[in-house]
Amino acid sequence: MLSEFELIKHYFSNFPENKSVLRGIGDDAAVIQIPDGKNLVQSCDTLVSGIHFPKATSPFDIGYKALAVNLSDMAAMGAEPHSFLLALTIPEVDEGWLRQFRDGLLELAEQYHIPLVGGDTSRGVLTISITINGTVAAGKSICRNTAMVGDDIFVTGDIGDAALGLKSILEEMQDDDYAACVEKLNRPIPRISTGIRLHDVAASMIDVSDGLGSDLQHILESSGVAAKVWLDKLPVSATMQRWLTRGNDYSLCLAGGDDYELVFTAASKHRAAIDKVARATECKISRIGEVIAASASQPSLILIDMNNKETAMSAKGYQHFRASR
Amino acid sequence: MLSEFELIKHYFSNFPENKSVLRGIGDDAAVIQIPDGKNLVQSCDTLVSGIHFPKATSPFDIGYKALAVNLSDMAAMGAEPHSFLLALTIPEVDEGWLRQFRDGLLELAEQYHIPLVGGDTSRGVLTISITINGTVAAGKSICRNTAMVGDDIFVTGDIGDAALGLKSILEEMQDDDYAACVEKLNRPIPRISTGIRLHDVAASMIDVSDGLGSDLQHILESSGVAAKVWLDKLPVSATMQRWLTRGNDYSLCLAGGDDYELVFTAASKHRAAIDKVARATECKISRIGEVIAASASQPSLILIDMNNKETAMSAKGYQHFRASR
Repeated sequence: MLSEFELIKHYFSNFPENKSVLRGIGDDAAVIQIPDGKNLVQSCDTLVSGIHFPKATSPFDIGYKALAVNLSDMAAMGAEPHSFLLALTIPEVDEGWLRQFRDGLLELAEQYHIPLVGGDTSRGVLTISITINGTVAAGKSICRNTAMVGDDIFVTGDIGDAALGLKSILEEMQDDDYAACVEKLNRPIPRISTGIRLHDVAASMIDVSDGLGSDLQHILESSGVAAKVWLDKLPVSATMQRWLTRGNDYSLCLAGGDDYELVFTAASKHRAAIDKVARATECKISRIGEVIAASASQPSLILIDMNNKETAMSAKGYQHFRASR
Repeated sequence: MLSEFELIKHYFSNFPENKSVLRGIGDDAAVIQIPDGKNLVQSCDTLVSGIHFPKATSPFDIGYKALAVNLSDMAAMGAEPHSFLLALTIPEVDEGWLRQFRDGLLELAEQYHIPLVGGDTSRGVLTISITINGTVAAGKSICRNTAMVGDDIFVTGDIGDAALGLKSILEEMQDDDYAACVEKLNRPIPRISTGIRLHDVAASMIDVSDGLGSDLQHILESSGVAAKVWLDKLPVSATMQRWLTRGNDYSLCLAGGDDYELVFTAASKHRAAIDKVARATECKISRIGEVIAASASQPSLILIDMNNKETAMSAKGYQHFRASR
């Protein structure tokens, strides 16, 4: 008989250890020492099969992505990942599935040396809910509500590829071109080292999970500012560039979601420092716009196209719920 | 349009606040100041509809219980609850349901002054996954692996009522007697103040979620000891007493689960102190057995009946999975 307890012990016992975890899995709760002078940074993200990833996604990729999206939240705060808890709901005990899922989690857990400090396993529709802990020097977290008029707006990496990858799967678009986009969808790279190095530089930051447009709007809204973004400055891959030249618009880049890149604002005096961060972390950072004063007479996010025409952000980011009131 | 973000903001914005939460809901992650000299205590527990509670359970009770079972883990560590995160998966946006569910959560959140510091909402089968944070003076958490031979074994409250309540629902047992048992099932009282006061007294502790027998066995196994428990010392309600006198055995008490009482061990010199804790917290604490040395020739948990006959614990606690290897 493989009980729930043995199951958890068996498959999830080989995660990294950390001396500040005084008591990990195997008790009612974990006991953790947060170093003096550090704040705890904490968030949770859930992936539901068929909603957040196609049902055919490999168990390795599901495990990888479940941790990656949580790590991305740490990156967006400028925090260093510390440990995580896993609430796993699975329809049945499939040892092969569990092993691969665990290996996907482990890939990132080992890379960032983060122990699994708590967990719960239930039976039901495949749902992975992770709570992640990070630490940041007291007062150094980078929030959403601190963008300043005049700030530059930057984004890491390329955007839109994950959405194009998802589209290629759902619409069965046959083209080897899209393999890299599917890779971006399934194995996003959390921008941890970039986030940490932006501590004394970025004024505000968020990660792009729902789409560059709507995530940037979260910054604008909570900071009480507006922004101009130049469409031709949006960093795109060669595959996305070909997609755009075939007459498609920027909606996958602006509202596609699942990029897990960082979008942040910074005073223009920091441009050289940001360039240095980009080189040090080998992560492309593109300046795509500027923060302007909010005004009742214009939309908060103004998009400027190649012909210098201004349009408003109309397509909304990916939202799990839409209901009329 | 009520977006996911607005939904979370709307229904979950009136939880208690706490100055040590430097940044709560509304950013990529919460930022929390853990006081110097305190350890962070952390666990997560998931409730799935139809598995952990009958589908007809009221939204208020679901919210209440989801937080109660997590609070119980804090109690079992001797920790003070600090804050919590909610990963909520719901089949649809039903505002009436959400309001009542929120009110159930709020009842306990207000009682213990714990802010909601993070969350994620997804669409799917009703699943509530909560991660709870607590704090405990450094080195003072009460773990499972520290029971000593010679310790007394104690349990708080009455046991078996929740299991009897569940049985009365599932088997449609018509008897007003069971109303209090159903109440115990739906609204367990987390033993927070009792847990905290046991700091310098209890050697080891666990909460009874899977059944007194199997949870006590977790203590025995991780401490490398065995135990004798006197069946006639098990604290039971009048309803359970009637159930037992009708020829039923102790299996609901030993293997029923969902009690969320504390079972702990303590050196016998602490009996007076434990009596004081019971009176101070108005919580019944019963001495039910003693810790003995483990031996290869006998089971780890020995049950002693009224006729002084010894039997082994055979019925296992409630386990979500059973699979053959």
